[in-house]
Amino acid sequence: MKQSIHSIYLVVAVFTALVLSISVLQAQENDPLPSWNEGEAKSSIIDFVTAVTTEGGADYVAPTDRIATFDNDGNLWGEQPLYVQLVFALDRVKEMAPQNPEWKDTEPFKSVLAGDMKGVAATGKEGLAKILAATHTGMTSEEFTRIAKEWIETARHPELNKPYTSLIYQPMLEVIDYLRANDFKVFIVSGGGIEFMRPWTEKVYGIPSEYVVGTSIKTEYKVRDGEPVIMRLAEIDLVDDKAGKPIGIHRYIGKRPIAAFGNSDGDFEMLEYTTSGPGRRFGMIIHHDDAEREYAYDRDSHIGRLDRGLDEGPKRGWTIVSMKNDWKTIYPE
Amino acid sequence: MKQSIHSIYLVVAVFTALVLSISVLQAQENDPLPSWNEGEAKSSIIDFVTAVTTEGGADYVAPTDRIATFDNDGNLWGEQPLYVQLVFALDRVKEMAPQNPEWKDTEPFKSVLAGDMKGVAATGKEGLAKILAATHTGMTSEEFTRIAKEWIETARHPELNKPYTSLIYQPMLEVIDYLRANDFKVFIVSGGGIEFMRPWTEKVYGIPSEYVVGTSIKTEYKVRDGEPVIMRLAEIDLVDDKAGKPIGIHRYIGKRPIAAFGNSDGDFEMLEYTTSGPGRRFGMIIHHDDAEREYAYDRDSHIGRLDRGLDEGPKRGWTIVSMKNDWKTIYPE
Repeated sequence: MKQSIHSIYLVVAVFTALVLSISVLQAQENDPLPSWNEGEAKSSIIDFVTAVTTEGGADYVAPTDRIATFDNDGNLWGEQPLYVQLVFALDRVKEMAPQNPEWKDTEPFKSVLAGDMKGVAATGKEGLAKILAATHTGMTSEEFTRIAKEWIETARHPELNKPYTSLIYQPMLEVIDYLRANDFKVFIVSGGGIEFMRPWTEKVYGIPSEYVVGTSIKTEYKVRDGEPVIMRLAEIDLVDDKAGKPIGIHRYIGKRPIAAFGNSDGDFEMLEYTTSGPGRRFGMIIHHDDAEREYAYDRDSHIGRLDRGLDEGPKRGWTIVSMKNDWKTIYPE
Repeated sequence: MKQSIHSIYLVVAVFTALVLSISVLQAQENDPLPSWNEGEAKSSIIDFVTAVTTEGGADYVAPTDRIATFDNDGNLWGEQPLYVQLVFALDRVKEMAPQNPEWKDTEPFKSVLAGDMKGVAATGKEGLAKILAATHTGMTSEEFTRIAKEWIETARHPELNKPYTSLIYQPMLEVIDYLRANDFKVFIVSGGGIEFMRPWTEKVYGIPSEYVVGTSIKTEYKVRDGEPVIMRLAEIDLVDDKAGKPIGIHRYIGKRPIAAFGNSDGDFEMLEYTTSGPGRRFGMIIHHDDAEREYAYDRDSHIGRLDRGLDEGPKRGWTIVSMKNDWKTIYPE
């Protein structure tokens, strides 16, 4: 008798454990943001999406107006110790040096070739403009696409020694997927070069070229040796940063987003424009405060400086995300 | 006996008629372009779409690269006797006249208000620029959207006395639907103003604002009385016509289309750029040769002039569509 009661207890215990495991598994399955720790940041995203997709609710937004915009550098992938596109430009200078022997004695190329980053920095904005003009213009758009694509497929992060396209933020990929599953249109709106991003965003983020907004240069259409081409000119068209972001959004999307995601003061105007429209809105700022798993920087950083956003964001109802506390993991496995 | 044989004949005849009717209905159901007469133009579209969507075929194109671009004026809707946007601008001058009393004595407004189209024409490009600046700039983007939307909902064609949005071409709507059903991304690439089109293209053609490319003006982001707005400036950004069309395609879409549809020499470079890429390509020009059901115009027309395209199009393998012969109907019922 004792034996059989024991058996019954055992069966009940095993059954209870099974039921509990299944509930946990189901909860995980139903969790659209498994890489986010429970907390205000995570629930602010879910509350917003639930509100704007609940038919008949006060905050309901039709799918055609469910526009969400994401910064790229520091928001979807890393930007330290240098913007990826700047590493690309420096690599291109080295690659192109044999065809440009005069660079050995001309700044800023001389410093780039000597690996003297302080020397490069000393050439200032003019030096940077020369590097960008030499490496990003003068070819056709299709040639540049091929160059950018080949580079991104082989380049590796200097400290983490991994391809840049694997150093993307898993929690943000989950937000993108969650929004898409809820009929949002998801755009990148980045200060980075539009043509530097477009060759790989679809493969890496599932975001096609026409949903990528970025800094652009002027181009010219011409028929070269009987072949129509788009030539890349050494003249800026749109600087898609700060007040340039709402301009870029307006130009490319033609509608005010209802949700915007960024990480630096370069995203301030995008979030301001987005969250000041009528109806329910959402703004989020990723705060890089995780020196152990990624990098920690904000008010004093030259790259991805975040100062005004930290002060004004909370007052404006924006969600400030702590990478350290809100993110379970940083990168995809 | 005779009677029963007669009955059998009757049954057979009715049965045959039924079967025939069903086949005809099925053929109609399977026809993706029912408003197109059978002929070279219709079969060139179907052959192209079949070729690029046949998996394993030599001409197969992945869905992400199935980009098709459509001109708007004269290609998706009418452009005679005046571009619709020009009618809008002239109506706006009349609407705004009470707030601008000096217009009564200043050209080109004086002629517009007097209904003197010859006088307006005599003011040339400068006059037109003044009309466009006065009616299209100086307000916020959202104010302009509201103005354009309200106008298009009430304005009517002066000769056909119908809303402009009902004077769209049924055969082209079928091409758009057919391409979409085959996983094409369908864009408008028009010389018309991007912000004049975006408020109504989704409702009328099913094409959302981010898939509309057009002529644009510069804008400025600013916070006005605490409210972030996009101000429309009196400065041209992109003239999306002729060589500007490949530039616009490159800027907004970031990929070379595989199919392009136009009707005037303003579309020449778009078709040239599209059809000179590698792999199977498609270019189509609508020839307005139907004076009875629409308008007939080509080489000598000030609006929608088609000259070079008529000569070079066939040599380049482009399909030239005769509205008169190839289209069963012009407008939706």
